[in-house]
Amino acid sequence: MALTFKLDARDTETEARAGRMLTRHGEVLTPAFMPVGTQGTVKTLAPDDLTAAGADILLANTYHLYLRPGAETVREMGGLHRFMSWSGAILTDSGGFQILSLADLRKVGDRGVEFRSHLDGSRHFITPEDAIRIQDDLGTDIAMSFDELVELPSPIDVVRRSVDRTLDWASRGLSERERLRHQGRGEMALFGINQGGVEGAERERCFEGLGAMPFDGFALGGLWVGESRSLSLEMVERDCAMFPKERPRYLMGVGHPVDMIDAVARGVDLFDCVLPTRNARRGTVFISTGRLVVKNAAYARDPRPLDPDCDCPTCRRFSRAYLRHLFVSGELLGMRLASVHAVTQMIRLARDARRAVLEGNFRAFRAGFLEKFRSGETLIRSGAGSASPSTTEDTTDDVE
Amino acid sequence: MALTFKLDARDTETEARAGRMLTRHGEVLTPAFMPVGTQGTVKTLAPDDLTAAGADILLANTYHLYLRPGAETVREMGGLHRFMSWSGAILTDSGGFQILSLADLRKVGDRGVEFRSHLDGSRHFITPEDAIRIQDDLGTDIAMSFDELVELPSPIDVVRRSVDRTLDWASRGLSERERLRHQGRGEMALFGINQGGVEGAERERCFEGLGAMPFDGFALGGLWVGESRSLSLEMVERDCAMFPKERPRYLMGVGHPVDMIDAVARGVDLFDCVLPTRNARRGTVFISTGRLVVKNAAYARDPRPLDPDCDCPTCRRFSRAYLRHLFVSGELLGMRLASVHAVTQMIRLARDARRAVLEGNFRAFRAGFLEKFRSGETLIRSGAGSASPSTTEDTTDDVE
Repeated sequence: MALTFKLDARDTETEARAGRMLTRHGEVLTPAFMPVGTQGTVKTLAPDDLTAAGADILLANTYHLYLRPGAETVREMGGLHRFMSWSGAILTDSGGFQILSLADLRKVGDRGVEFRSHLDGSRHFITPEDAIRIQDDLGTDIAMSFDELVELPSPIDVVRRSVDRTLDWASRGLSERERLRHQGRGEMALFGINQGGVEGAERERCFEGLGAMPFDGFALGGLWVGESRSLSLEMVERDCAMFPKERPRYLMGVGHPVDMIDAVARGVDLFDCVLPTRNARRGTVFISTGRLVVKNAAYARDPRPLDPDCDCPTCRRFSRAYLRHLFVSGELLGMRLASVHAVTQMIRLARDARRAVLEGNFRAFRAGFLEKFRSGETLIRSGAGSASPSTTEDTTDDVE
Repeated sequence: MALTFKLDARDTETEARAGRMLTRHGEVLTPAFMPVGTQGTVKTLAPDDLTAAGADILLANTYHLYLRPGAETVREMGGLHRFMSWSGAILTDSGGFQILSLADLRKVGDRGVEFRSHLDGSRHFITPEDAIRIQDDLGTDIAMSFDELVELPSPIDVVRRSVDRTLDWASRGLSERERLRHQGRGEMALFGINQGGVEGAERERCFEGLGAMPFDGFALGGLWVGESRSLSLEMVERDCAMFPKERPRYLMGVGHPVDMIDAVARGVDLFDCVLPTRNARRGTVFISTGRLVVKNAAYARDPRPLDPDCDCPTCRRFSRAYLRHLFVSGELLGMRLASVHAVTQMIRLARDARRAVLEGNFRAFRAGFLEKFRSGETLIRSGAGSASPSTTEDTTDDVE
């Protein structure tokens, strides 16, 4: 088996679950937050930092690694684990999302997607089969099916066509993995991605097809891309109600603390997002009491750690005053220390949710988390330092 | 005593020495290379990285910290050790060099130096007494006397005036430390800086004055600022012949491996330079066989570490192919991993020289080091990747 998933406990009052996935590179405790290692590195962090942060799984971007250094190179260097010196699990995305969001001159057809590289304008054509082979070359533990996203809002016929295509591509991806397996390759797990935007009926239709295919897990695709948060959460609830209990469920691209806990309550097991690390590099971190803007002048002589409740290597050793100095001075160490905190904070939050499910007090945990997160305690109360739980900030630039 | 210095061994064929300095923050084995923590951080590196690299002492720049975050802030945060979470020794420069090289509109008078901040144009006036007080506020272990450098070449009367001023300021700095000591402060060691450019007679005259003052150590100032390497080495030889054997000797701003070993052979104990870390951030590192340009396309699938002879955390875990990928992709982790190697390499080279002196085979060590360093083995032999031991490259920009 490429992947085994076991549920340790289910919450009785919500849909929250505590599970464990056994991958070819160790066990992943769920709910889990996966730091994003876009180009073969979680920006500014070394593997030891991620281990210290409690990470047992990372996400890597197929599109980026395919373009640079190239899947062949990664394969020749012994696969992505060895290349980046990471011994834990790796999940790769399919590349579909980055092709949509980064590449130029996309032309989507039934056979696959033609696009130009955002790096050098070179032309590429990727089929659903290619996406599987590339992820296999990378040596991933969990591959994602190649899917077609649509921008929201889209006319219903566009959504329908993308669901049809996603189903066709899902089936072709599975066949390609079978073909690889006959060659002694393709050992990775493969997740299907449910699409249909925020059209409940289309997501249901998509899963009618997808759920009948032998995927090792299922992802909730096409959400948190601009639509309203309540509509997204409704889709999460509907998808999770359809998804089989005995397979892991992955909500792609979600990484705000509040969103993550709300989705855990609806039955999601896996999360990834660049938001925590991207914000960190810009000097904004979530702490247990909200959102802290490191450069705020009020922290210039604040001897407290970023988060007095946190035991990450940054919070154990460095003050807000020092972090602020690093950011004000343009020192890269600031980005790194803030990223260490940000990754630790999200991984711990998912781990805390897991423990709460195991201990049968998820509801109380969630209420306590939300109350504290909205309290703004130890934060400077100003416009810039507010504890507003906005989930859409800072998600539009950088190549991730 | 603010500092005790003990010679463990002296080479019989050269002037090389093996010693140890006991500071308020631990022992420093000499010869020693001090990584430069310009703004309260050795760029991209955390304290743990420096400890792993074998560092027992860092250099911090008084000018930078005085301007930002300000000596008062550092003092209020518990001093520089606590602020940056570094428990080893710290040597601070006087600020004189940065005022010369970075600040605008300098006006040097007998009383002190007036200048404008390179950060915001603000006006400042620093006296030799201020320089001592600022370093005391920072909580340094070893302070440097405020000196006047001259640009080379300068007319002889300019050099003479700078020697006169340096002597006057040296004496005023010592008095200021005395005054602070009567207030229960000023516990740090204080080094005098010998000036006189490449005028042997002026350097002698300078040391006639300086050597009579109760400094805890002596620095060789105003060298490696553009004059010929052979002339600099001649000055090193002359200065060391005058300097007392029982005090540490510090050659400021020297950090090319070959220069460092050549100066050790002439009796120098301490070195600092931004060159190794600055080069590293640009993707160039020294390895035991010369100079390696990480981005070189020939390393794209090279599974070897940067330096097959190195056991630093970078060389133990990462390939040239991965490092090249990080640099080509603009990933900050590349700068960090290269810096880890660069700092380790210089510290180890100084430590190896020390061991050779202790074992009585410094001459053979030095010949072996030079032969290997010039061999270019394991390097790509091209224009960009040549093993040329140039000592003047890449020393002109960045604020360090």
